[in-house]
Amino acid sequence: MREAMARAEVGDEQSGSDPTTNALCARVADLLGMEAGVFMPSGTMCNLAAILVQTRAGDEIIVDDQSHIYNTEAAGAAAIGGVSVRALPTRNGLYTPEQAEAAIRAPQRTAPRSALISVEQTTSFSGGSIWDLAAMRRIRDIARARGLKAHIDGARLLNAVAATGIPARTYAEGFDSAWIDLSKGLGCPVGAVLCGSHDFVTEAWRWKYRLGGAMRQSGVLAAAGLYALDHHIDQLAEDNANAGRLGAALAGTPGLAFEPEAGQSNILSFSVAGLGVPAAAFADACLAQGVRVRALGSEQIRATTHLDVDRAGIARAAAVIRAEAERIAAERG
Amino acid sequence: MREAMARAEVGDEQSGSDPTTNALCARVADLLGMEAGVFMPSGTMCNLAAILVQTRAGDEIIVDDQSHIYNTEAAGAAAIGGVSVRALPTRNGLYTPEQAEAAIRAPQRTAPRSALISVEQTTSFSGGSIWDLAAMRRIRDIARARGLKAHIDGARLLNAVAATGIPARTYAEGFDSAWIDLSKGLGCPVGAVLCGSHDFVTEAWRWKYRLGGAMRQSGVLAAAGLYALDHHIDQLAEDNANAGRLGAALAGTPGLAFEPEAGQSNILSFSVAGLGVPAAAFADACLAQGVRVRALGSEQIRATTHLDVDRAGIARAAAVIRAEAERIAAERG
Amino acid sequence: MREAMARAEVGDEQSGSDPTTNALCARVADLLGMEAGVFMPSGTMCNLAAILVQTRAGDEIIVDDQSHIYNTEAAGAAAIGGVSVRALPTRNGLYTPEQAEAAIRAPQRTAPRSALISVEQTTSFSGGSIWDLAAMRRIRDIARARGLKAHIDGARLLNAVAATGIPARTYAEGFDSAWIDLSKGLGCPVGAVLCGSHDFVTEAWRWKYRLGGAMRQSGVLAAAGLYALDHHIDQLAEDNANAGRLGAALAGTPGLAFEPEAGQSNILSFSVAGLGVPAAAFADACLAQGVRVRALGSEQIRATTHLDVDRAGIARAAAVIRAEAERIAAERG
Amino acid sequence: MREAMARAEVGDEQSGSDPTTNALCARVADLLGMEAGVFMPSGTMCNLAAILVQTRAGDEIIVDDQSHIYNTEAAGAAAIGGVSVRALPTRNGLYTPEQAEAAIRAPQRTAPRSALISVEQTTSFSGGSIWDLAAMRRIRDIARARGLKAHIDGARLLNAVAATGIPARTYAEGFDSAWIDLSKGLGCPVGAVLCGSHDFVTEAWRWKYRLGGAMRQSGVLAAAGLYALDHHIDQLAEDNANAGRLGAALAGTPGLAFEPEAGQSNILSFSVAGLGVPAAAFADACLAQGVRVRALGSEQIRATTHLDVDRAGIARAAAVIRAEAERIAAERG
Repeated sequence: MREAMARAEVGDEQSGSDPTTNALCARVADLLGMEAGVFMPSGTMCNLAAILVQTRAGDEIIVDDQSHIYNTEAAGAAAIGGVSVRALPTRNGLYTPEQAEAAIRAPQRTAPRSALISVEQTTSFSGGSIWDLAAMRRIRDIARARGLKAHIDGARLLNAVAATGIPARTYAEGFDSAWIDLSKGLGCPVGAVLCGSHDFVTEAWRWKYRLGGAMRQSGVLAAAGLYALDHHIDQLAEDNANAGRLGAALAGTPGLAFEPEAGQSNILSFSVAGLGVPAAAFADACLAQGVRVRALGSEQIRATTHLDVDRAGIARAAAVIRAEAERIAAERG
Repeated sequence: MREAMARAEVGDEQSGSDPTTNALCARVADLLGMEAGVFMPSGTMCNLAAILVQTRAGDEIIVDDQSHIYNTEAAGAAAIGGVSVRALPTRNGLYTPEQAEAAIRAPQRTAPRSALISVEQTTSFSGGSIWDLAAMRRIRDIARARGLKAHIDGARLLNAVAATGIPARTYAEGFDSAWIDLSKGLGCPVGAVLCGSHDFVTEAWRWKYRLGGAMRQSGVLAAAGLYALDHHIDQLAEDNANAGRLGAALAGTPGLAFEPEAGQSNILSFSVAGLGVPAAAFADACLAQGVRVRALGSEQIRATTHLDVDRAGIARAAAVIRAEAERIAAERG
Repeated sequence: MREAMARAEVGDEQSGSDPTTNALCARVADLLGMEAGVFMPSGTMCNLAAILVQTRAGDEIIVDDQSHIYNTEAAGAAAIGGVSVRALPTRNGLYTPEQAEAAIRAPQRTAPRSALISVEQTTSFSGGSIWDLAAMRRIRDIARARGLKAHIDGARLLNAVAATGIPARTYAEGFDSAWIDLSKGLGCPVGAVLCGSHDFVTEAWRWKYRLGGAMRQSGVLAAAGLYALDHHIDQLAEDNANAGRLGAALAGTPGLAFEPEAGQSNILSFSVAGLGVPAAAFADACLAQGVRVRALGSEQIRATTHLDVDRAGIARAAAVIRAEAERIAAERG
Repeated sequence: MREAMARAEVGDEQSGSDPTTNALCARVADLLGMEAGVFMPSGTMCNLAAILVQTRAGDEIIVDDQSHIYNTEAAGAAAIGGVSVRALPTRNGLYTPEQAEAAIRAPQRTAPRSALISVEQTTSFSGGSIWDLAAMRRIRDIARARGLKAHIDGARLLNAVAATGIPARTYAEGFDSAWIDLSKGLGCPVGAVLCGSHDFVTEAWRWKYRLGGAMRQSGVLAAAGLYALDHHIDQLAEDNANAGRLGAALAGTPGLAFEPEAGQSNILSFSVAGLGVPAAAFADACLAQGVRVRALGSEQIRATTHLDVDRAGIARAAAVIRAEAERIAAERG
C-alpha cells in the first residue's frame, strides 16, 4: 500500500485534477450505485456533510441512540448545522420501521422539521449488528413517502457485505447518500468516500471546503484506498470470521455476558458487569497484557478485529481476556 | 386588567427606565427567590435564552421527551444555539434522577458536552403531572455535582404551587434559572419573566436583544402581569379544581382512557384510542359543539382549564365530551 | 392610544385569531404594497427574520457600514443565521448602485454566496439621510438581476415619506421584504410590522415562533399601531420640520459641525469634535439640563425629534445645546 | 519526499500515538515559538479552528478586506461559528494599527463583541505584500490592551521569513495563534499546522474532531512536512527571487500595471485593465501557452512561484505573458 501511495499520480483535488482521487471517487460511487463521490479526511466529515447538505437549521434528523452521529461526533450536527437529533431508543442500534414512522413529525410551525433519517451499517456500539436489508428498505420507503432524505453511515458497510454476501449497491439502492470508510477494516491511513447524486456531491464539496476538508494532492491518500479495494476486501470476511472465533473462544467465560448478535460482523461486544469491575479497568488490564479492547460506558467492552490481527492473534486475545475474567472472578469469589 | 394596562407608567425598557416592567421583574424574581428577572415576549424565549446563556455550540441539554423544548420550540436550541437535545424517555414527562445521572456524558473530545438539565413544572403534554419536590432537588443536586446548570421551565409552575401549597421559591431553590408564564393561567395578553442571578440576567438581556425581543414601553404589558399576580393567583387553584371536576365527570365514559396522574393540576389528558377515531376528529366534533380541546398526536386529547372557564362551563364541557364519546361508541357498537 | 388599547378586541395571534393584529398587518401590508405582514416585538426581529428567511448559513448580505444591521443588532445575522455581513464604506449610510454591483460576489465554491441586499430608509447613524428613490430602484434591479433578494429596513421609512411625499409603497415596490416601526416616530409602546409575499410571511412566522417572538393577545399592542396610523402620521412631517428648526437654530454655534444632509428627516446629527470634548460628556451635560441627545462614537451627537417634543421644546433644546457649546468654547478660550 | 512518506512510522493521531505527526507538530510549534501544535488537513481549517476556539456566537473578528478569511473560506466563520467579520478597507491587505484600534467596538449589549484580530502574512490577494514586524506588533499590543486575541494566518509566513530574514518565531511572538501551510511553498501534498498554547491546542483539537478533520495515520502526510522543513526552506528564497525576476522581466510591458509592492515575496500581481480584456480571458490565453496564472476579479492577475518552477521556467513565463500583452495591445492598437 505504501508503495502504491509513493507512486500515486496526483494533482490539485480542489480543481478536480487529481486523477487518483478522481478514480477512487468513481470506484466507490460505482460500488454504491451512486452517481458521484467525494473524498473526505474522515467518516465524521462524511456524516456531517451529508447532514449539512440535506437539512437546514431547525430541522431534525432521526438516528438510533447508539449511533456515531448521536454519541461520537461532538454534536457537530447541532453545532455546525443547527440540526436537532432525535435518537430512537434501541437495544443494539437497530430500530424498527414502526419507530421510524412514529418519529417523523407532522409539519407544524412549532415543531422541528423532520428532514433526514440515518441507518448505521453495521452498528458500532452494539456488537456490530447487521441491519436487515428488508428493514433498511422499509425505512427508506417511509422516508421517501414522508419527504425525508435517507442516509447510510457505512463506516462498516463492507463488513456487512462480507458477512451477508449482499452487494453494497444493493444496500444503498434508493438511499440519498452513503459512504464507506477506508481507514477502518480496509486499513488505509486516512479517508472515507461520501457518495450521492451529482447535485449532492456538488453541495457536499461546498461544505467540505467550508469545513476545511479540501486538500491538495489527496491522490497520495486515495491511492491507498484504491489499493485496499483491490487487495483488502477479502480480509473483511476474515475479520468477521475472527470476531466469530473470538466469541466462540470466550463463550462460557465466567462473568462475561454477550449480546445475542455478538460476532455478526467484525465487532464483539460483551458486558463485564458480572465481574463487578468497571469496563475501563478491565480494558486497561487487557492492554497491559498486549490486548487492546475498548470500554464503552461503564460495563461494555468492544473488541474489533482488523487486518493486523490474524488467527493466532485472536487465540492470544481470547486467552488474555478469559484469564483476566477468571482471575477477577476468583478474587471476588 | 385592561384598566391597569391603560394607566401603566412606562419608560424605555432597554435603558432600564420602564418602572412597571422593573417592578414586575423584581416581583417575579422575589417570588422565585432569584436575584433578578427579565421580561420576555413569550415563554419560548425564556427557555431559549436560558439555554443560550448557559451553553455553547456543541453542548447537549437534557430534557424529557414530552417537553416543550424538545417538541414545540421549532428546534430553537439547535438552530440558534447549536445545542443538541437529549430527550429522556418518559411516560408522562417525569424522568427519574437515575435517568438524569445516566444521561450525563463523561467529558470526552468526541462527545457532546452535557451542560444543562431542564425540568418542566407542570408537564405540558402529559396531563399536567406535577414534579415531586424531592425528585427535582435530587436532579438539581446531580446537575450541580456533575457541573451542569439546572433550569425550570415554569410555564405552569404556579399551577403546581396552587395544587401542592409548596411555594414557587421552594421549587426554584438552587436552580440556576426559572421562569413563569403570564399569558397562560394568569390570563395576561403577552409575556413571561425569566429569572436567575444578576450575571445570568445580564447575559439573558444580551440574547433577548439579539433575538429581537427587546421592546420599548413594555410597561403596558407588565402592568397586566402585576395585576394578575395580585388578582388571579387564587384562580389557579380553581382551575386545578375544575380539571379535577372534569375528570370526575368523565370517569367511566366508554372508550376514554385517563392517565393515572389526570387532573393533578389544570390539565386533563385522555386517550380516545378506545373509540377508534383520530384525536383530531374528536377534537373537531367537540369544537363544533363549543368545547375547545386539543389533539396531541393521533390518540391523546388535552383539555386545559383557565380563568375564562367556570364551574358551569366545566359541566357543559363534560356533557359534550361524554355525549360525543357515547355517540361514537354506539355507532361503532 | 391607551384607550384604543384598552378596548382592543383580541384573540390568540398564533392561531391567526387576533382580529386587531390581523387588521394591523393587513393595513401595513397595504401601505407597503405587499401581500402580507407579520407583527413583531421589535424592528430588530424584523431585520433578523427577513435575513433568516432569505438566506442560509454561509451566505453574505450587503449593507452600509453605518447600518443598524451591521452595528446595532449584536451580530444576530451571523450568530443566529450563520450569515456574513459585507458592509459597504459610506459617509452617511448611502452607498451607490456601483458599490452594490461590485460587492456581489461571483458564484464560487470558495466564496460566500451573496444573497440579500438591504437599504435603510432613512439612515440611522448618519443624520437621517433620505435614500433617493432612483438609487433604491437601481440597487433593487441589480439585486434582482444577480439573484439576490432586496430588503428595506424601514425603521424611519415613514419619515422619508413625510419629507418627500413619495408613498411608502412606491419606495417598497419590487423589494422582497420591508418593515415599518411602530415604536419610533409613530409613538406606540411596542412593535413593528414586517411585510412581503405570502410565502415570505409564512416563513417569517416560523422564525418569529422559533426566536420566541410569538405572543398571545398581541391585539392590545396592535391597537396602538392602528391608532397611530390613523392619528400620528401627520406628526411625522412635524417631526421632520422640528429637526429642521433645530438645525436652523443651532446654525453657527461655535464648535458644532453639521453633516450636509442634516435635518432631512427627523434626525439632526452633528460633531462636537471642534469643542474638544467627548460626545458622551456633551450628551450628559445636555441631559442634566433636561435635553436628551445621544452620543454616537466619540465625536457625533444625534438628536431625534418625535411626537413628545413640540415646537417650544425644540426651542428649549436649541437653547440648551447652544449655551452648552458656547460655555465649553469660552472655557477652552 | 514520497520516500519519506512511504517509510513514515505511524499510529492513530486521535489518541496522540502517531509519532511522525507528533514530531511535526512539535517542530512547527518550536519554529513559531508556541507551546503546541495540531496537524490540520488544510489552512482553511487552521483559520476556522483558531476562530472557533477564540470566539463565540455573536462575536466579531477583524481582518483585512483582501484576506482569505473574508473572501475565500465560504463564510465559514459566520456559518460555523456565528461570528461576524469586520473587513478593514485596504489597498493591499495591509491595514494600519490606527484602523485596527478604530475597528474595535466599545462593549455594549447592542453591538457585536470584538474578539479576534487577524494578520495574513504575506497577503494573498495583494501581490504577496509583507507585513512590517513593527506594525504587526502594534496591532498585537492593541488587541491585547483591548481584550482581543491576535492571530496570524501564516499561509505564506515562511516566504516572508525568506524575504526578510526575520525568524518565524519573532513574527509570531505574543500572538495567540498562528499556523503555516505545508502544501504551498513547501510542496507537501496535504496539510498545515496550527499552533498556540496547550489549552488552545486542546480546544482546537475538539473542533478539528467536530469538523471532521481528525484523521488516523496522518504520519504519512506529516512525514512530507518534516521532509519539507528539512529540504525545501531554501527554495522559498528562490521562489521569492523568481517572483522578482518575473517582475523585472515584465517591467514596461504595455498595458500591465504593477502594484508598488510587486514581487516582495513569491507572488506577482498586476492589472490587465490597460489592455481592455477581462483578467479571466488573459489567464486562459496564458494557460493555452502553458503558463498558469490566476485571475482575481475582473482586472487582476496573480502569478505565484513555487518549487516546480525554476529560473528557466520564469523566463518562459515572462516571454509568454509579455507576448500575449503585446499581441492584445497591437490588436487594439
